[in-house]
Amino acid sequence: MKKPTSLLEELADTALDIEAMLDDLLPPAGAAPRLMRAMRHAALGGGKRVRPHLLRMSARLLGGDDAAALRAGAALEMVHCYSLVHDDLPAMDDDAMRRGRPTCHVAFDEATAILAGDALLTHAFMVLADAATHPSAEVRAGLIHALAKAAGHHGMVAGQMLDIEAEQAASHDEMMVRAVQMLKTGALFRFAAEAGAILAGAAAEDRERLRVYAHNIGLAFQIADDILDATAAPEAVGKRTGKDATAGKATFIDLYGLDGARQRAAALVDDAVEALDPYGAAADPLRALARFIITRGK
Amino acid sequence: MKKPTSLLEELADTALDIEAMLDDLLPPAGAAPRLMRAMRHAALGGGKRVRPHLLRMSARLLGGDDAAALRAGAALEMVHCYSLVHDDLPAMDDDAMRRGRPTCHVAFDEATAILAGDALLTHAFMVLADAATHPSAEVRAGLIHALAKAAGHHGMVAGQMLDIEAEQAASHDEMMVRAVQMLKTGALFRFAAEAGAILAGAAAEDRERLRVYAHNIGLAFQIADDILDATAAPEAVGKRTGKDATAGKATFIDLYGLDGARQRAAALVDDAVEALDPYGAAADPLRALARFIITRGK
Repeated sequence: MKKPTSLLEELADTALDIEAMLDDLLPPAGAAPRLMRAMRHAALGGGKRVRPHLLRMSARLLGGDDAAALRAGAALEMVHCYSLVHDDLPAMDDDAMRRGRPTCHVAFDEATAILAGDALLTHAFMVLADAATHPSAEVRAGLIHALAKAAGHHGMVAGQMLDIEAEQAASHDEMMVRAVQMLKTGALFRFAAEAGAILAGAAAEDRERLRVYAHNIGLAFQIADDILDATAAPEAVGKRTGKDATAGKATFIDLYGLDGARQRAAALVDDAVEALDPYGAAADPLRALARFIITRGK
Repeated sequence: MKKPTSLLEELADTALDIEAMLDDLLPPAGAAPRLMRAMRHAALGGGKRVRPHLLRMSARLLGGDDAAALRAGAALEMVHCYSLVHDDLPAMDDDAMRRGRPTCHVAFDEATAILAGDALLTHAFMVLADAATHPSAEVRAGLIHALAKAAGHHGMVAGQMLDIEAEQAASHDEMMVRAVQMLKTGALFRFAAEAGAILAGAAAEDRERLRVYAHNIGLAFQIADDILDATAAPEAVGKRTGKDATAGKATFIDLYGLDGARQRAAALVDDAVEALDPYGAAADPLRALARFIITRGK
């Protein structure tokens, strides 16, 4: 195995590996070919695969198997992609462009997009339950429980609901914005780090450190995303920008202003990096990932 | 424990037990109260709970634990209810009434209904992954794999996709109608029987018999549903009727006519009952359930 020398090379490696695994886990043939095409449209050919990379680097730090981390990372990415498909629907954010391509309901139709999202979410759990992911059923059931908790009404979906409700609110206070984002974005980041620890059979103190790290970079990631939405051209990020302010969304720019948001994101990354102190140089890939997040967004 | 004396009493018992368990598994409080209300609207207070009853009776026949069967049955019912919420959406079947009440997107709104469906599906897997469902992680992972396979792009969601595509087809042949219904309705019925066998650690021949039984009653159930849609008044079934013909759906009435469909359903129930011959009187509850299906519909 070649040893990548920089975060960007490592991230590119993971993106290629995840793309290949998703291609393998979502074969074009099947009982309903149109459904498979829509699932592949949603999951393949895009994204920096930051969440799977976080999972993989967490597993590597704590001694988890790399092949297992990649399968778990592919399942996590299916959940992330399903959430984007449903978020982009006309009844939700009503977005026509994602990763520089038409969103799923534009490329197909609304019904197909709803079903493709449902099927991606379902398939993530089938992949994790498969013995090919890990020989221990305890580990597999642990991953499934943690992912369902992070993705469902305790986590991401609750965040999506609060995000919609916040659009109707007259003003946004810090508690509200943080609550929305800790659930909507943060829950899958925390799962990524936690899954690495579960795969490695890590001790409670390792899990806690990774949780602190992931919590902080999850918030930093969302702030960076808010900054991109407020400042970048659509062609730079492959989707509509400036839409949060228009929609009355609860964003960190509202709270802190642009400069304040940048400072806050940098402070969160410092906290994330500090949580990794006990691991010395072994945690450098996770430190590099934390810093990357505020320079690039999603 | 009192011993119920008839199928209708047993079914009513299961419905009460499932209602109580769903109430417990979906507490009204949570991070996003509106989301929880929508999930409870979709899952509670309705339905004959035929699928959980099939799961419970299959487990009972083969020696599976009853409390475990009820938890697995509640998870299965969450998946069934999520599929109804998404099926009823304007972009899908566009139905305003279900079980005699407003559908989820009518009682709340489209975005909330999409998210409530997503969260119910996700929660089903969390419930199955929880050690409270069964002490063996192998059993839990086995249930999750089987449910995901039945519910996703290998099963139910593929059937929903084909059902939509069939509306656009000029004519419907028997292969198409059977393929749609075996996936859309049949997959969860087969899972119900299979889950009972998994919980009981049943032998391969027992699993196969239950699979034949469930396959046949799944088809019979769908034929009975098509007959109800074609003949019943809306107030009798708690939802809009006559809609399949209007929508150009692929139904068994198209294929066989009304009398022919009734005969076909009866023949399928005979086949289902015959598959249970080796179990003698112990399988009477499953025989009664098979016969109930064609007299009552869903």
